[in-house]
Amino acid sequence: MKVSILGTGSVGQALAAKLSALGHSVFIGTRNVGDSLAKTGADNWGNPQIGAWMGLHPNIQLLTFKEAVVQGSDLIVFAMNGHAALDCLNSVGAELLTGKVMLDISNPLDFSKGFPPSLTVCNTDSLGEQIQKAYPALKVVKSLNTMSNPVMVNPALLEGDHSVFVSGNDASAKVKVSELLKSFGWAESNIIDLGDITTARGTEMILPLWVRLYGKLQTPLFNFNINMAKK
Amino acid sequence: MKVSILGTGSVGQALAAKLSALGHSVFIGTRNVGDSLAKTGADNWGNPQIGAWMGLHPNIQLLTFKEAVVQGSDLIVFAMNGHAALDCLNSVGAELLTGKVMLDISNPLDFSKGFPPSLTVCNTDSLGEQIQKAYPALKVVKSLNTMSNPVMVNPALLEGDHSVFVSGNDASAKVKVSELLKSFGWAESNIIDLGDITTARGTEMILPLWVRLYGKLQTPLFNFNINMAKK
Repeated sequence: MKVSILGTGSVGQALAAKLSALGHSVFIGTRNVGDSLAKTGADNWGNPQIGAWMGLHPNIQLLTFKEAVVQGSDLIVFAMNGHAALDCLNSVGAELLTGKVMLDISNPLDFSKGFPPSLTVCNTDSLGEQIQKAYPALKVVKSLNTMSNPVMVNPALLEGDHSVFVSGNDASAKVKVSELLKSFGWAESNIIDLGDITTARGTEMILPLWVRLYGKLQTPLFNFNINMAKK
Repeated sequence: MKVSILGTGSVGQALAAKLSALGHSVFIGTRNVGDSLAKTGADNWGNPQIGAWMGLHPNIQLLTFKEAVVQGSDLIVFAMNGHAALDCLNSVGAELLTGKVMLDISNPLDFSKGFPPSLTVCNTDSLGEQIQKAYPALKVVKSLNTMSNPVMVNPALLEGDHSVFVSGNDASAKVKVSELLKSFGWAESNIIDLGDITTARGTEMILPLWVRLYGKLQTPLFNFNINMAKK
């Protein structure tokens, strides 16, 4: 597939590297290519900035958001902070997004009052729904947003079975994303299709618990599993 | 222990039966004893009404909220719908609640617009915090609110390890609740102390996901486990 990844942070980098390693053509989108390439070294979290990272991944191209979607139109991966979603997609434009499948990994985290973050939208709405409403012809699939990026692309990092949730209105788009998840190593039985995009409220609202667990466990290498009754 | 359980629904019944079976003296509190005893047969969910249930549990007494707390003062269990919490505790009164430990199992679910419910409070506040603020001398411990009542009192119903969260400001109160959880069969390693009562935001906000999983899995017999990295 030709895949566009919107976002140059650690989530975008993890997805880009994995998709490239799986043989897909990957185009990373950013607001301004020159500004992004000028960033070298590590970010505040100790992850490489995209400028340094690009040098290690010569098969991957860095383009504007719009150019990336033009090149990588088989699947769009939205991997930025949630608050940036509508601005970013606006710069791509509704026409290019029509009929496309977008895997939305983002969460509407608000760090403006420090840690722990709250959500900018929740309860009776979700970021996934807001994106879907703003771009009705885009097939939004919310997934992977309930775990850290090393776990997203390598579920075998963790002990035993653990779960990944999928939310979206379009059944074929959810199949496409589920196939991608399987190619990352997710067992089909651990992929839980919750239903339409309104179920993204549930997965986005797990973030406040995720953040507290991260503080408690002192590692982002964990995930939720759904344990069922004994047979 | 002498335990008071505020609430006559299926959660209150499950906790009362378990605590009584473990040898504790149990006093169930309700708004109006006569009204509650007049209810027989099954409720809308197919569970026995408290009137019928009391006949099967002769060792357990049904009293008013206030009388129940007077009799069962070693531990208070709040097992009603979240929206009823402040009214219920108001009828007990701050004086009786001073210095007591209260296990709060409730969630601020709002079914006024049907299914799925939203939350009446979330994100920058929680029901656990509201109760703690209203009764500063009450030691509120939020726990068990992330699962169905059969799982609360019998974790061995489910496959493998799975998690129960604890939130509260008072360390000794959390120890008391954790000891109770262990007596229900919870392994110490599966009891996760998230921190102070503000962490109840996280566990209450998992409910929208719980509700969707219930719809998807068609059974309330499941729970969240936190899976960690392979060693």
